[in-house]
Amino acid sequence: MSRVIGGSALSFMKSHILSKSVNKIDIFLNTIRCFSVTKTRNMKLVQFSYKDSPKNIRVGYLEGDDIVDINKADSSLPTTLLQILRNGDLEKVKKLKSTKPATIPLSSVTLTAPIHGVDKILCIGLNYKDHCQEQNLTPPPVPMVFSKFSSTIIGPDQPVRIRTDVTKSCRVNHQRESQESDVTPTCANWGQLNLSAPKVDWEVELCVVVGREASCVREEDALQHVAGYTVAQDISARDWQKEKNMGQFLLGKSMDTFCPLGPCVLTSDEVGAAVELRVSCSLNGVLKQSSSTAQLVHSIPSLLHRISSVMTLVPGDLILTGTPGGVGMYRQPPEYLQPGDVLTSEIEKIGAFDVRIEKF
Amino acid sequence: MSRVIGGSALSFMKSHILSKSVNKIDIFLNTIRCFSVTKTRNMKLVQFSYKDSPKNIRVGYLEGDDIVDINKADSSLPTTLLQILRNGDLEKVKKLKSTKPATIPLSSVTLTAPIHGVDKILCIGLNYKDHCQEQNLTPPPVPMVFSKFSSTIIGPDQPVRIRTDVTKSCRVNHQRESQESDVTPTCANWGQLNLSAPKVDWEVELCVVVGREASCVREEDALQHVAGYTVAQDISARDWQKEKNMGQFLLGKSMDTFCPLGPCVLTSDEVGAAVELRVSCSLNGVLKQSSSTAQLVHSIPSLLHRISSVMTLVPGDLILTGTPGGVGMYRQPPEYLQPGDVLTSEIEKIGAFDVRIEKF
Repeated sequence: MSRVIGGSALSFMKSHILSKSVNKIDIFLNTIRCFSVTKTRNMKLVQFSYKDSPKNIRVGYLEGDDIVDINKADSSLPTTLLQILRNGDLEKVKKLKSTKPATIPLSSVTLTAPIHGVDKILCIGLNYKDHCQEQNLTPPPVPMVFSKFSSTIIGPDQPVRIRTDVTKSCRVNHQRESQESDVTPTCANWGQLNLSAPKVDWEVELCVVVGREASCVREEDALQHVAGYTVAQDISARDWQKEKNMGQFLLGKSMDTFCPLGPCVLTSDEVGAAVELRVSCSLNGVLKQSSSTAQLVHSIPSLLHRISSVMTLVPGDLILTGTPGGVGMYRQPPEYLQPGDVLTSEIEKIGAFDVRIEKF
Repeated sequence: MSRVIGGSALSFMKSHILSKSVNKIDIFLNTIRCFSVTKTRNMKLVQFSYKDSPKNIRVGYLEGDDIVDINKADSSLPTTLLQILRNGDLEKVKKLKSTKPATIPLSSVTLTAPIHGVDKILCIGLNYKDHCQEQNLTPPPVPMVFSKFSSTIIGPDQPVRIRTDVTKSCRVNHQRESQESDVTPTCANWGQLNLSAPKVDWEVELCVVVGREASCVREEDALQHVAGYTVAQDISARDWQKEKNMGQFLLGKSMDTFCPLGPCVLTSDEVGAAVELRVSCSLNGVLKQSSSTAQLVHSIPSLLHRISSVMTLVPGDLILTGTPGGVGMYRQPPEYLQPGDVLTSEIEKIGAFDVRIEKF
C-alpha cells in the first residue's frame, strides 16, 4: 500500500483505519486490489521522482505493486506523460508493456501529479444531480464551464496551501518592510473584504485527460479523444468564488496548489465513458462525499462535444467533470478545510490519494 | 514600415491610408518613429520566424529598423522570450545590446506573437472609466478577473478565426461523416441555442508581461515584477460570454485565436506603470476605440497587488488590463467582427499590429 501512494501512505492508511464506515473499508480494499492486479488493457500511468532527484519528473506505469520507468525501458520515449500524449506515443507504451520490461519498487520513488504543465484545465459546475439537490437547484440544461491555471496542479506528496488570511498576510509584509507606510496601509483597497479565514472547500472529481486533438467532435466519437482518467480535487475558496470577484469563479478556483491530482491516469480502454464509478472524499478519515458517476448531469461525451465546439482541445488538456454532493459549504453547519487536515480523494478503479492541508 | 509588422504590413498600411482621421495619421506616424528610434533603456523584444523555417520561433529585439537574433548573437541565451524571463536573463540581453551585435533586416523574418506558451493569461473586466460609462456602470471597487487559455495566443501574421455558426459547422461534419445519423443529429442538445453567427467583438488592451515571480507584492514594489508591456486584443464572443455559459466568461473569451498579441514587448524601463499611454483600435481603417491608460480604474500596481495576493504570478504571465470604451456591443446599432475584416490595435510607444478576421 505504501508503494501506491508514496510519501502520504501513512496518513492515508491512518485515515482509513480511523474510519468507522464498513462501506468505506470495502472501497479501501477494492483500491488495493485495483492497484495490485495488472490487467492486459488497463494501464495505470504515473509520474514520479527518484528520492535522490526530487525535481526530475519521470513517467511510468504500474505493474502489480511495482513501476516501470518508461524512458528507462525505451529511451526513444519521453520522460513526461504530457509529452507522450503530444507525441501520440501511448500505443507505443502499450506495446512496451507487452515486452515486460524491468520494474522498480514503488517504494523507491515519490509519486507526483500524474500529469503537469498542460494547456487547459476546464472545470464543470453543477454536474452531479446530488450536488444540485443539496443546493435546491435544477440541473442546468448546458454545462457551466470555468477554469483553473495549470500551475495549480500538485501531486499526492504535496500539501494544499491555504492563504488563511489574505489581508493579514499582506499587512504583515508591509509592516515588516516599511515602518513609514504603516500610516497608509498598502492593503487599504482591501477594506471591503472581511478578515476571516478563507472558506476553502473540497470537491472530489473525475478528471478526463485528453489524448488527441479535438475540435467539434460528435458525442459518439468523443471517447476516441480521451486518453484516460485521474482523480482530482477542485479545491475552492468559496468567499473568492462567490463574493470577491464579481461572480467570476477564477480566483476562488486558481489559488496556488488548488488542483491536487493523483494517483495515476487510468487509460480508458476498460472504463469507456466512466458511466458508473464510485466517487468519494474523506476528511481526516470521515466520509464527506460518496456518490457515483451515474449521477452526472452531462456525460463525458457530451462535455467533450460541447467544449470542443468552441475551442480546440489538445493532448494533455484536463476536464474536471464536476463534484457530487457533500461539499463543505452546504453542510449544516458549513465545514471548511483547516491547516492540519488530511483530505482523501478516491474513485473506483483509478485509486485514492491523500493531501495534507497547510497554511500558506 | 513593412519591416515592423511583417507579413501584415500591406493590410496595415491600407487600413491607415483608408482612414480619414488626421488624429489617426498622427498616431500612425508616431508608431513609425517609435519603431525607428532605438533608445538606450528602451528595448523592444520580439519573436519571429525565418521564412524558410516558419514553425521555429526565435526571440530578438528591434535595433532601429532591423532586428537582433538574441540566441544567434549569444548562444548561451534562450530562443524564446518565455525562457529568457524564466531564466532571469533579461539583464544579460540588455548587456548584449550594448555590444551592438550584428542585425538582420526585419523584412527577412515574420513577426509572431512576442510571447507564447505562458502559464496564465489574466484579464480584467470593467477597468476603463469610459468603458464603464458606455454601459452606464459605476466602476467596480475591486477588479473583476477572468482568464483565457495560453493556446488562444496568435501573432500579427495569424488570423482571428471565428466559429461563425457553431451549431451549423458541427452539423456539416456530422452529415459528411455519417448519413444514418442525420436522423438524430448529434447536435440535438444545442437546441436551446440560436443559430445566428456569434457576436464576436474587439477589445484592445495594454498587456502586462510579468518578469519575476510575484506573491503578495505591495503596490509600491509591483513594478519590479513587470518585464514590460505589449498590445493585446481580448477578442470576445459576446453570446458565449454573457448568455451561453451561465455567466462565466471563460468560453466566450477562450475560443481558438482569441488573444492576438503584438508587435513587441516594450521593457518597462521608461514607461514605468504606463499611466498615460494612448490606446486605440480601428476596424478596416475606421477608428473604434481611442482612449488613454489615464482612464484605468485600477492601476497596474494595484492589479499586481490584488492578483498576487491570491496566486503566485510567474515569469511570462500576462495581465490584459481591460479595454476602453468603443467596443462593438455597446454601439448603436451594435457592430461585430466579420470574416474579411482587418483589426488594427495600437498603443503609444509600444506599436501597432493588424490581424485579419477569417471564418473558422
